[in-house]
Amino acid sequence: MTKDKIRVVPLGGLGEIGKNMMVIEYGDDILIVDVGVMFPDDEMFGVDLVIPDTSYLADKKHRIRGILITHGHEDHVGSLPYVLPMLDFPPIYATRLTQGLIQVKLKEHRLLEKTIINVISPEDKLELGSCGVEFFRVNHSIPDAIGIVIRTPIGTVVHTGDYKFDYTPVDGKPADLGKLGELGNQGVLLMMGDSTRVESPGYTPSERVINDSLDKIFANAPGRVIVATFASLISRVQQVVDTAERYERFVALVGRSMINNVQMAIELGYLRVPKGMLIRAEDINKFNPGQVVIICTGSQGEPTSALTRIANEDHRLVRIQEADTVILSATPVPGNEKMVHRTINSLFRQGAEVFYQGLSNVHVSGHAAQEELKLMLSLLRPKFFLPVHGEYRQLILHAKLAYSLGTPEEHIVVAEDGDIIELTQERIEMVGHTTSGNVYVDGLSVGDVGQIVLRDRKVLSQDGILMAVLTVDKETGLPIAGPDIVTRGFVYMRDAEELLTSARERVIDSLSGLNGHSSDWSFVKDKIKSTLSEYLYEKTRRRPMILPVVMEV
Amino acid sequence: MTKDKIRVVPLGGLGEIGKNMMVIEYGDDILIVDVGVMFPDDEMFGVDLVIPDTSYLADKKHRIRGILITHGHEDHVGSLPYVLPMLDFPPIYATRLTQGLIQVKLKEHRLLEKTIINVISPEDKLELGSCGVEFFRVNHSIPDAIGIVIRTPIGTVVHTGDYKFDYTPVDGKPADLGKLGELGNQGVLLMMGDSTRVESPGYTPSERVINDSLDKIFANAPGRVIVATFASLISRVQQVVDTAERYERFVALVGRSMINNVQMAIELGYLRVPKGMLIRAEDINKFNPGQVVIICTGSQGEPTSALTRIANEDHRLVRIQEADTVILSATPVPGNEKMVHRTINSLFRQGAEVFYQGLSNVHVSGHAAQEELKLMLSLLRPKFFLPVHGEYRQLILHAKLAYSLGTPEEHIVVAEDGDIIELTQERIEMVGHTTSGNVYVDGLSVGDVGQIVLRDRKVLSQDGILMAVLTVDKETGLPIAGPDIVTRGFVYMRDAEELLTSARERVIDSLSGLNGHSSDWSFVKDKIKSTLSEYLYEKTRRRPMILPVVMEV
Ligand SMILES: [Zn+2]
Ligand SMILES: [Zn+2]
Ligand SMILES: [Zn+2]
Ligand SMILES: [Zn+2]
Repeated sequence: MTKDKIRVVPLGGLGEIGKNMMVIEYGDDILIVDVGVMFPDDEMFGVDLVIPDTSYLADKKHRIRGILITHGHEDHVGSLPYVLPMLDFPPIYATRLTQGLIQVKLKEHRLLEKTIINVISPEDKLELGSCGVEFFRVNHSIPDAIGIVIRTPIGTVVHTGDYKFDYTPVDGKPADLGKLGELGNQGVLLMMGDSTRVESPGYTPSERVINDSLDKIFANAPGRVIVATFASLISRVQQVVDTAERYERFVALVGRSMINNVQMAIELGYLRVPKGMLIRAEDINKFNPGQVVIICTGSQGEPTSALTRIANEDHRLVRIQEADTVILSATPVPGNEKMVHRTINSLFRQGAEVFYQGLSNVHVSGHAAQEELKLMLSLLRPKFFLPVHGEYRQLILHAKLAYSLGTPEEHIVVAEDGDIIELTQERIEMVGHTTSGNVYVDGLSVGDVGQIVLRDRKVLSQDGILMAVLTVDKETGLPIAGPDIVTRGFVYMRDAEELLTSARERVIDSLSGLNGHSSDWSFVKDKIKSTLSEYLYEKTRRRPMILPVVMEV
Repeated sequence: MTKDKIRVVPLGGLGEIGKNMMVIEYGDDILIVDVGVMFPDDEMFGVDLVIPDTSYLADKKHRIRGILITHGHEDHVGSLPYVLPMLDFPPIYATRLTQGLIQVKLKEHRLLEKTIINVISPEDKLELGSCGVEFFRVNHSIPDAIGIVIRTPIGTVVHTGDYKFDYTPVDGKPADLGKLGELGNQGVLLMMGDSTRVESPGYTPSERVINDSLDKIFANAPGRVIVATFASLISRVQQVVDTAERYERFVALVGRSMINNVQMAIELGYLRVPKGMLIRAEDINKFNPGQVVIICTGSQGEPTSALTRIANEDHRLVRIQEADTVILSATPVPGNEKMVHRTINSLFRQGAEVFYQGLSNVHVSGHAAQEELKLMLSLLRPKFFLPVHGEYRQLILHAKLAYSLGTPEEHIVVAEDGDIIELTQERIEMVGHTTSGNVYVDGLSVGDVGQIVLRDRKVLSQDGILMAVLTVDKETGLPIAGPDIVTRGFVYMRDAEELLTSARERVIDSLSGLNGHSSDWSFVKDKIKSTLSEYLYEKTRRRPMILPVVMEV
C-alpha cells in the first residue's frame, strides 16, 4: 500500500453487537484491535459460538505487528483461541487484568505456551512497525479498560474501545480526560467510537448510585442476600463486598467463572476483600442466613448458570429459602429478556424477594450515553469518524450525532463487517468489500456448520422429519420390504397411526406406476418425497422434512 | 356448589401474558370472562398458537350462561374459534367493536352461523342465571374496552379487564370513574385486576402526548411517512389520520389485518376519516411522496407482516425510497426485541429515517402503571383481591401493591392457571388445582402436538438427526444391506465423508458380536444407537438424534 494511506477493515462488531475485530493497515504494517466472540442468536440453531471470518488476513499474516486488546470482555477477547492459530500467533498487547483473563482462556485451550502476551500500562508507548501505539484509560463495566491511539506517519487513529465517563468510579480511576484533550489538540485523523448506547439520552449514571440501592436492600434483608451479576463486573462485586462488610456479612462465591474471576482480580489487586470474609459455598448453611451474601453468575438467565439452577431448584449447594433476597444486578442483553423473566418468576414462586433493574436501581450500563458520546467527539475533534460497536441503526445514529456536532457528512463513514475503508490526510472512502460474516463454532468443529446445516436444523425444528425406508431387489427393481415410515417431531407416532398408514399406502401406490424407471433411485426418491409432502400438507398443514431412503439387496 | 360460595378458576393468563380465560362459578351458574390465545415462545418449536386447556369445563358445559368479552385483543378473543365448539357455543356478550372483531375471526373459521353474539353497551344490565352482570368503560389500546361486574347473591365480583386511566383519550371516552366509585361504595367482594405494568412507576401518559411527536415528525418529513402500529390500535390510527389531515396528506393502508380493522372501525363509527383521504396502496406512486402516509402492520417485526416485508425489500407494492420516514408506533412485546431491531436496521440500511420508542415519544402503553393500579384498588376497595393478566412476578408485585394499600395478606391470593379459588363472604382460599396448561395448535391439529413432539423438535434443532438403516435376513438375522447412514442438520454430509464412513464401520463392528441376539431388533437398535452416539460425541462434541431403522427381508 502507498505511504499516504491508512486502510481500516472491520472484521466484526460493525452491524452487530459482538465479535469485535478491527484491522488497521499502514504501509506494510497491520495492527488488530480486539478479537471478540459473539453468542449465537435464536436463528443459529445449535451453534455454540460465532467468531469473525478472518480470510482477509490469510495472505497477510506476516505483516501483523500485534493484536491490541481494549478490555477483557468476551466480545473483545473471546475468539483469540480460534483466531490466534489461524494467524500464526501474533503478539498480544493488553493491560494486566485483561491479560489475566486472556491467560485463563488460552490455558483452557492449551494455547498458552505458543502465545506472547505483553502486559502494558496505559502510560506505555510502543513502536509497532512504522506506527507508535499509545493508550488512554476509560471507564467501563470491567477494570483496566483502555482506548487505543495509533500514530501513523500520516496521522493519528484513535479507537475508543468500550467506554463511558464515570467521574466517581468504584476503582477510583476515572477516564483520562487530560490525555483525550491533548490528543484532540494534537489532531486526530480518524476516530472509531463505541456506539452501543447512542439510543439513550443523557449520561450513564456513575457506578456510585448502586451503593445506595444495595445499602437499602441489605438494610431490609431479613435473611440471605443473593446477588447475581456478570463475572467480569469486578466493580459491582467490589460494591457488594463493601456493602457486605458494612452489614457484617460473609460472602460466598457461586459459579465457576465468578470464582475464577474474583480470585484473579484479588490476586492482581483489582478487588479488595477483607480477611476472613470469603466462605466456601459448601459452608453457607453453617452461618445464620442474616450473615450470608452469595455472589453468583446467571444475571442473564443462561440455562447452565448458577442463578438459573438455583431458580430451577437444580443447584448442587443453594436452594431458595424463606426470607431470601435476590438481586439481579445487570440488564438483560437484548434477546435474553424471556430467560431472565423466567428466572425472576421462578425465584418469586419459591418465595424470594427479588430486586431487578427497572424495579430498583441495581445496575448501570458500561457504555456511554448520548451526552458522553458528544463529550468524546468534542474532546477528540477527529477529522474523520467511523462509528463502531453497534447494530446498523446505532452506527447510523452515532453518525448523525457526529454530524450534529459539526463533522461534515463526507467525513463520516457508516461501514459494516468486511467493508474496506481507506483514508488519506484529505479524504475517507469505502473502496471495497472483503469476505466477512459468521464462522460458527459447534462442538469441536470451527466453520464446518454452514448455511445448509442451519437451514436443515430450522426446518427440523418447525415440523420435524419423516423418513420412508424402502428395500428393493437390485435385479428386478421391485420393492421387497417397506416402505417403513418413521417420524420424529412431526406427529406423536402412537396417535397418528391412521395418518401414517395411509401415507404408507400412498407411497406404495405411487411406486406401482414406476416400473420403467425402477432402477433410477433418485427418480423414485423424488416421487416418494412429492407424494408424501403433498399428502401430509393436505392432511396436517405441516411440512416436515421428508427423507426417502432406498436400499438395494 | 353451596350457595354461600363463589368459585374462581383461571384457565389462562395467570402466570403468563396471553390466553386470558377466567371461569367464575356461583351455584349452578358459570360465567366465563375472555377466551384468549397466546403466541408461542421460542421453546414451542413450530407451534402456531397456544390455547387454554378447557378440560375443567368438559362436564360443566350445560352450566355455562355466557362468555363475557372485555375487549377485542387476541389475548382475549383469539381462542374463541377453537374453544366455542368444545363448549357447545355458549352465548357471547361483547361491545360493538369487540363483536365486529370476533365476527371477522369466526367467519374465517366458518363458525359464524353457530355462534350467538350479543352486542352490549357499557350501560347495559344483564341477568345471567342467578347473577346480574354490568359493565364499566375503561381505557385501553383498543376502543370499546370494558370491565365486568358480576353481582352474585353473596357479593360483587369485579374483573377490570385490560385497563389504564386516560383523562384525555383520543376517542373522548375516559374510563368510568363514577361507576367505579359507586361500585366501591356499594362494596366489592372480589376484584381481579390487570397486572401487566405493575413494574412501571407513575402513570401511563395520555395517548395525547403522541400527537406532539407525530406533528413534529410530519412537519420535518421530506417524503413519505410510513407508520407501523398494531392493527387493533384504532386510536393510534386516528391520530395518524388527524395528523395526515393537518399536513394535507393522503393515507394508504397496507397489510390485511390493518385494512380489515380500519374498514370495520370506520363502518362502526370508531374511526373518522375525511372523505377522499384514503387511497389504494396500488396508487401510492401516483402521488408526490410529500403527499403520502402509509399505515401498516409489522410493528413487532413479525416475519410475514407488511413492515417486515418492506424492510426486507420483499413487499409487493412498497419499497423504501430516499427521504422516507418510518415510525414504529409500538413497543416490542418481550421476546420480539431482536426481530424489531432487525427491521429497524434494515430500514436504516435502505436509507429511511426511522423513529421508534425510546428514541422518540411515539407510543404509550395500554396498561395501567403503579399509580393507576393504586387508583383502581382505591376506587373499588375490594375485600378480596386476585391479581390477573401477568407473569408470576407481576402477580406477586401487584399483590404486594394491594397489601401496601391496606388489604390484609390473607385477603389476597396469588394464583396461576388451573388453581381453584373459593370465596365466601368471610374468606378466600385456594382449594385445589385442575388440569391446565398449554394446548398447541399446529397446522390443522389442535392438541396433538405435545411435550414429546416438542422435545424431539428441540433436539433436532440443536444437533440434527442421523439415521442408520440396515436390512437383515429374517431367517439368519444377518445384515444383507447397509448400514446406510443419512444425516440432516448434523454435519454437512459432503464435508464429513470420513466421519460418516468410520461411524458406519463402528456400527458393523458392533453388530458382529451380536449373533446370539440377532432377531431381537430392539436390542440391536439400542446397540447401534449407543455405539453411534458415543463415537459421534467423542469426534464432534455434538449429540444428534440417532435413529436406527432395521428392515427384515
Ligand atoms: Zn465491553
Ligand atoms: Zn463490547
Ligand atoms: Zn388488551
Ligand atoms: Zn390483554
